[in-house]
Amino acid sequence: MTAEIIAVGSELLTPQRVDTNSLFLTRRLNERGIEVVRKTIVGDDRQRLAAEIRQARGSSRVVIMTGGLGPTLDDISREAASDALGRGMAFHPEILEGIEALFRGFKRKMADINRRQAYILEGAEVLHNDNGTAPGQWFEDDEGILVLLPGPPRELEPLFEKQCIPRLERLKSPYEYHTVSLRVVGVSESEVDQRIAPIYSAESRVATTILSAPGDIQIHLRARASSAEEARKIAESLAQKVEDELGTSIYTREDETLEQVVAQLYCERGATLAVAESCTGGLLAQRITSVPGSSEYFAGGFVTYSDGAKTGWLGVDAATIEKHGAVSRETAAELARAVRQKAGASVGVSITGVAGPTGATEKTPRGTVFVGLADDAGVEVTQLHLGGDRHRVRVLAAQTALDLLRRRVA
Amino acid sequence: MTAEIIAVGSELLTPQRVDTNSLFLTRRLNERGIEVVRKTIVGDDRQRLAAEIRQARGSSRVVIMTGGLGPTLDDISREAASDALGRGMAFHPEILEGIEALFRGFKRKMADINRRQAYILEGAEVLHNDNGTAPGQWFEDDEGILVLLPGPPRELEPLFEKQCIPRLERLKSPYEYHTVSLRVVGVSESEVDQRIAPIYSAESRVATTILSAPGDIQIHLRARASSAEEARKIAESLAQKVEDELGTSIYTREDETLEQVVAQLYCERGATLAVAESCTGGLLAQRITSVPGSSEYFAGGFVTYSDGAKTGWLGVDAATIEKHGAVSRETAAELARAVRQKAGASVGVSITGVAGPTGATEKTPRGTVFVGLADDAGVEVTQLHLGGDRHRVRVLAAQTALDLLRRRVA
Repeated sequence: MTAEIIAVGSELLTPQRVDTNSLFLTRRLNERGIEVVRKTIVGDDRQRLAAEIRQARGSSRVVIMTGGLGPTLDDISREAASDALGRGMAFHPEILEGIEALFRGFKRKMADINRRQAYILEGAEVLHNDNGTAPGQWFEDDEGILVLLPGPPRELEPLFEKQCIPRLERLKSPYEYHTVSLRVVGVSESEVDQRIAPIYSAESRVATTILSAPGDIQIHLRARASSAEEARKIAESLAQKVEDELGTSIYTREDETLEQVVAQLYCERGATLAVAESCTGGLLAQRITSVPGSSEYFAGGFVTYSDGAKTGWLGVDAATIEKHGAVSRETAAELARAVRQKAGASVGVSITGVAGPTGATEKTPRGTVFVGLADDAGVEVTQLHLGGDRHRVRVLAAQTALDLLRRRVA
Repeated sequence: MTAEIIAVGSELLTPQRVDTNSLFLTRRLNERGIEVVRKTIVGDDRQRLAAEIRQARGSSRVVIMTGGLGPTLDDISREAASDALGRGMAFHPEILEGIEALFRGFKRKMADINRRQAYILEGAEVLHNDNGTAPGQWFEDDEGILVLLPGPPRELEPLFEKQCIPRLERLKSPYEYHTVSLRVVGVSESEVDQRIAPIYSAESRVATTILSAPGDIQIHLRARASSAEEARKIAESLAQKVEDELGTSIYTREDETLEQVVAQLYCERGATLAVAESCTGGLLAQRITSVPGSSEYFAGGFVTYSDGAKTGWLGVDAATIEKHGAVSRETAAELARAVRQKAGASVGVSITGVAGPTGATEKTPRGTVFVGLADDAGVEVTQLHLGGDRHRVRVLAAQTALDLLRRRVA
């Protein structure tokens, strides 16, 4: 069975924006044995979009449209689908009531234009949207399935999981699939591939994909077999070999972030954490506190962006900074110790470095970062030499700090 | 004049990869007044790709294909183009010699399969590739232009600049374009549209697009006219009307973020800033310090995630928290004053709120956030009622704080 995805929106045809919803959708469709054979991006042009829908329906059984369900006049997915199917739309008062209730919840008045979002293709099922005003739509006839989904990922993803996956289960392929995902920190993509290619290449029943972000790599192993149990066994057996090779660089087999893994470890151990950040400027604290319930183990943080803040707020010895520099092993160590003590936390972590583009010296070139970790056992400082621009250095520094926290507490 | 881009390659239909070549191509085409109206991604499927090429040529004057020019059998762009045009291909011995020379340069033997790269569509011009073995191809007939480009960006980009741009100059559209972009904070997308739709709808020579992110909306006004000066005048005149309507909600006309605007204002005025964050957990500090050179005006930040941190680190009166709660107007005011004093900054800003999912009470429901701003003139607290999940509440709270900072200093 094949699927096509049509992303709708003129903003997706600008030089600034890519469509990322299709990545999520492709993953979920692939897991169900549905292959995505074509992806299209069209602007807010009703006629062109209608032609696109007709063409896609002519060649694939499943057609998914994303975006263009907003309230404004340039949101034309509903109308284009109506044109393509040659079907009218019906006004659903209960949808409008839901939208009005949402606005009341925000203590705001609904604009009249939002009424447009209460129109549904004749014969389509309404896919309730828990996270926004635009409901999705599921239409099915002899030619195939047409799904209309809202554009924002925070609306699309839960809606798809909750309402589209069960409907897709009904159309299952003759194969069963099982996917194991591993997440890796602290190893480069090319090193990961070099080490595991001999392993996954030897197993033709598993499709292996490697997805890389700065300091964070995902390995997906997708096995196909005639039974679910068989698919699971094949995937698990390969995963075990990959785990043996990569060891503790693998931080999870769940769909979770490094900060979520750290959160769990800290909660389990009843440990608490405080951070002092210089070059990352709050990024580490922001990641830690992005996890719900982080107040359980996060005692707080300091963004000590100046020498004065380091000495005045945390009591770092001015002589240490004077002698070794703000970006040094010694300052990182003092910062970690100081923030741990100030916050009364089990673990103190510090980050000081040169993110660039300015601030580099011969002794401490751009990309030099020290991460300090203080606990009962003392203080340990790790020196990093990171490549890339300001953003990348900051992201990698925070990622490394989280990895060190994981290893230290685990 | 319109263009369509077809990215070729099954790897671009996996959950891991996006097509980014089209962003570069779109930018360069737009600069020449050529609008990209559709982008497609197809796998290594000769028949499907040929159908795609025919369809694209039927609706747009310029069709650009990227990828699928490699030596292996799954590289089928040449063959599919040949099918779509109903034209044969010719073997070019001089291209093969060039490829052989490249391999000699790498001290490697050319594989026989590379011969495939020496085939060119009958009637097409060869676009020499300085950085790889696959040449591009430029085909032009009455129906329009079909361009075949190699997939790797480091081959595609210089090839396009050097060989396609001059050819495109010849076909310049009879029109000139001018775009004005406005960025808006603190107003919802539907409200923006409701207020400015009567303005932009009355000007048919301008294409208006509205791009929305939480708390941040971009309005692009792209005017078309017979001269550049005329296009500029039309766009500017419309922009002026939109600015009159939206007033100070517009924070910039440049391609810059709200934190960059705040950075400029602080630098110009020689003012300094310190922040105390509770529910945003470092997000505000992280955004402020993402701007290079922020150490000029950013004195530092506190992530006071617990009551103890608020009282112990910044000297907030425990009685205030006891009486009014950590999430209250009074605590926000004290936090802002305290962080300003502690950091010796011109302005202190505080954020305290309930991001959820836990921590809500009847008095302070989820989404309640107080932002405090303290300066020489005293302290001002703004109460927000934000909708959405934890992530959205945090993003909107930080965005609002930056907006208040902008308005206060401006």
